[in-house]
Amino acid sequence: MRALVLNDTLQLETEHSNPDIVVGEALIRVHQAGICATDLELVKGYMGFQGTLGHEFVGVIEQAAGQPQLIGRRVAGEINAACRSCETCRAGRLTHCPHRTVLGIDHRNGAFADYLCLPYENVHILPKSITDDQAVFVEPLAAACEILQQVVIKPTDRIVVLGDGKLGLLCAQVLQLTGCQLEVLGHHAEKLNILAKRGIRIATSLEHITPGADIIIEATGTPHGLTTAAQLVRPRGTIVLKSTYHGDVTVNMTSLVINEVTLIGSRCGPFEPAIRLLEQQLVDVTPLIHAHYPIDDALTALDSAGTKGTLKVMLTMT
Amino acid sequence: MRALVLNDTLQLETEHSNPDIVVGEALIRVHQAGICATDLELVKGYMGFQGTLGHEFVGVIEQAAGQPQLIGRRVAGEINAACRSCETCRAGRLTHCPHRTVLGIDHRNGAFADYLCLPYENVHILPKSITDDQAVFVEPLAAACEILQQVVIKPTDRIVVLGDGKLGLLCAQVLQLTGCQLEVLGHHAEKLNILAKRGIRIATSLEHITPGADIIIEATGTPHGLTTAAQLVRPRGTIVLKSTYHGDVTVNMTSLVINEVTLIGSRCGPFEPAIRLLEQQLVDVTPLIHAHYPIDDALTALDSAGTKGTLKVMLTMT
Repeated sequence: MRALVLNDTLQLETEHSNPDIVVGEALIRVHQAGICATDLELVKGYMGFQGTLGHEFVGVIEQAAGQPQLIGRRVAGEINAACRSCETCRAGRLTHCPHRTVLGIDHRNGAFADYLCLPYENVHILPKSITDDQAVFVEPLAAACEILQQVVIKPTDRIVVLGDGKLGLLCAQVLQLTGCQLEVLGHHAEKLNILAKRGIRIATSLEHITPGADIIIEATGTPHGLTTAAQLVRPRGTIVLKSTYHGDVTVNMTSLVINEVTLIGSRCGPFEPAIRLLEQQLVDVTPLIHAHYPIDDALTALDSAGTKGTLKVMLTMT
Repeated sequence: MRALVLNDTLQLETEHSNPDIVVGEALIRVHQAGICATDLELVKGYMGFQGTLGHEFVGVIEQAAGQPQLIGRRVAGEINAACRSCETCRAGRLTHCPHRTVLGIDHRNGAFADYLCLPYENVHILPKSITDDQAVFVEPLAAACEILQQVVIKPTDRIVVLGDGKLGLLCAQVLQLTGCQLEVLGHHAEKLNILAKRGIRIATSLEHITPGADIIIEATGTPHGLTTAAQLVRPRGTIVLKSTYHGDVTVNMTSLVINEVTLIGSRCGPFEPAIRLLEQQLVDVTPLIHAHYPIDDALTALDSAGTKGTLKVMLTMT
């Protein structure tokens, strides 16, 4: 099969062997996959991952031993494959299982290939009304939903989203649904306009944001985002950290202590709410698509995704 | 009056002018005051404070225009003097008022003097059963109680307190009362033994603490504390930041995001619960006292308080 493999170099292999099917896992033929900022970080050396990249996908189950009802179903898939038996799993924190593998990120081959495998528990059957283009967004939209799993958002809260990348745009759309007073700070007018068209207040300069916000969503993908967040949050306010990047950051922790600020790291989220939001058309992901490339042009697609200002680049396998 | 004044140098002035009494404020004759790590940081330049140091005290109200019932009452005093009219105050976050002055810390002369002034709203009348020695601990004990104002502590939680300084010992005693599984990591056997005698598990080496704790209280007073806290906390656990120090700290924020850790800054707390805990003898502060010095020997007392391993040094004014 075809697979975009990261070893010491990044290479499109056309004769890659099909995945070995493990008991309890489904073989999925990938239709389409999305390139995420994390993929670009992985190529730079983040996590030290080696293997097939890709973790946002839609596909059809081709093999599922003992689960014949799954065969032929179109699915999205949760990326964390947990052991389901350790203390962390038994406490319900499956996405934090210390023994987990992570699709296309950590010891599990990913979705930029004709086939992938995932445990049955990880697959979510998609309703017909969700297109393949939309389905690829279930994973990042779930990550946006994770914010609401972690933080009580009051409709009276003033919230600032920092960053107009793909995740920032998804977080903003999900948060808008709470009725909160929302502002998004970004750098790219054309991306921010996707939100402005939905009635969300946008800004391209920090000076246009009044400090003292209740909650800041830090989704810039850069270390500077935290400094900006600390400037904008009110005393006893909350900063949700969505950015992951290679390397450390220097912070004045004392000011966060004096202001009794809460920082909360936020990662993967629940798939079913993300599927509902797409099905009920409460979130619109299609304006976030920049381009489609066949997997044969995967290297060109990754270059395109890595160009500043580019939104979602899709790889198609069919 | 006598006053320990920090200007460009630290000096005990014996002919310092008495405080000017402002409408709405009580004049308090200080009995006794405690030296806190923050005082030592202020001397090093933290906050750029100039004026009389000291913010932990017990004293008697001598003047209180319009509030004759307060005269002669023995009190402890909250250190943040808020404007009580701005948006932050009206939202109930008085200790975060941007216009506040802070006793002996920020634009308000402090308690290392024969007299100080505080707004009526800041004074808390002390029951007779609380000694002067105990009363000086109301302020730092309130800061320990602040943790329980901010974080839901479950009796089943495993909690690690980092630091066996005065604040660490008070936090440990308060947390023990929740029934949680508590461990304290410190460097000084004689300080830790105060806790061991109360049945609290102590450790002097990180290797003796099992990682994966639900909540970490970072009260080391050093930037390294955060790194240790991040190593010990479980995924989706909480790190309460109590340490304030001069300067920045370098952190791997990405690991906190991946593990979805919550960091929460924690500062001044509620006085009435602290007074109740002392009155009901649920917390024992007397073993935390290292020595008493008359204010005339204040410079010697500060040197003593600054010696590694020293617990609470008291200044007496009478």
